[in-house]
Amino acid sequence: MPRSYETQQTCPVARSLGLIGDRWTLLVVRDLLRGGTRFADLMQSLEGISPNVLSTRLKTLEDDGILERSIYEHHPPRAEYHLTEKGRALSSVIGAIYDWGEQWAPSTDEVAAPSA
Amino acid sequence: MPRSYETQQTCPVARSLGLIGDRWTLLVVRDLLRGGTRFADLMQSLEGISPNVLSTRLKTLEDDGILERSIYEHHPPRAEYHLTEKGRALSSVIGAIYDWGEQWAPSTDEVAAPSA
Repeated sequence: MPRSYETQQTCPVARSLGLIGDRWTLLVVRDLLRGGTRFADLMQSLEGISPNVLSTRLKTLEDDGILERSIYEHHPPRAEYHLTEKGRALSSVIGAIYDWGEQWAPSTDEVAAPSA
Repeated sequence: MPRSYETQQTCPVARSLGLIGDRWTLLVVRDLLRGGTRFADLMQSLEGISPNVLSTRLKTLEDDGILERSIYEHHPPRAEYHLTEKGRALSSVIGAIYDWGEQWAPSTDEVAAPSA
């Protein structure tokens, strides 16, 4: 890094961020890395998200091949969300964000100085 | 991954995304990883961003200690933006996004199959 690119379309960073470049999307991926997850679990984990925004993000992630939706109960119908191989490959991105946050974005509950 | 967290505030991923969790912010960091960059260069690189949005993102990144602004010409005043150590540490995040994009978000100019 940095590597070369000519336009946003030829830059893998820009193309990736077109798919995953918002906070909620990456937090959904974070939660799904733990395994199959239901809508209600995501609502609880993603403090402050609205059901409409979560629905939209999940649909977009499904359309982009990052997650799959499966029905685990039929009466009433209940869905569970799983990452695809493409989605699981984002674990390296989430891991890098996690590591950066541990060093450079300390919790406001912690002492202000970042850990070395 | 996945690692444990109790709330968004105790999760380093969520805390990080509070600082860098939008597409433009990470594209600004991508550009600044190449070295000091002027506002006009960023405007040209970040196709489609408005000057107001770019100004706001730069100010926020400066307030969060991710970049520094320096004046390189006084008449008229012209500023250049540099990453701090905290900002340069994001190279691992940008690198992970780059690698994921190369494999999973092929350019629409390329053949549809992702490279292995």
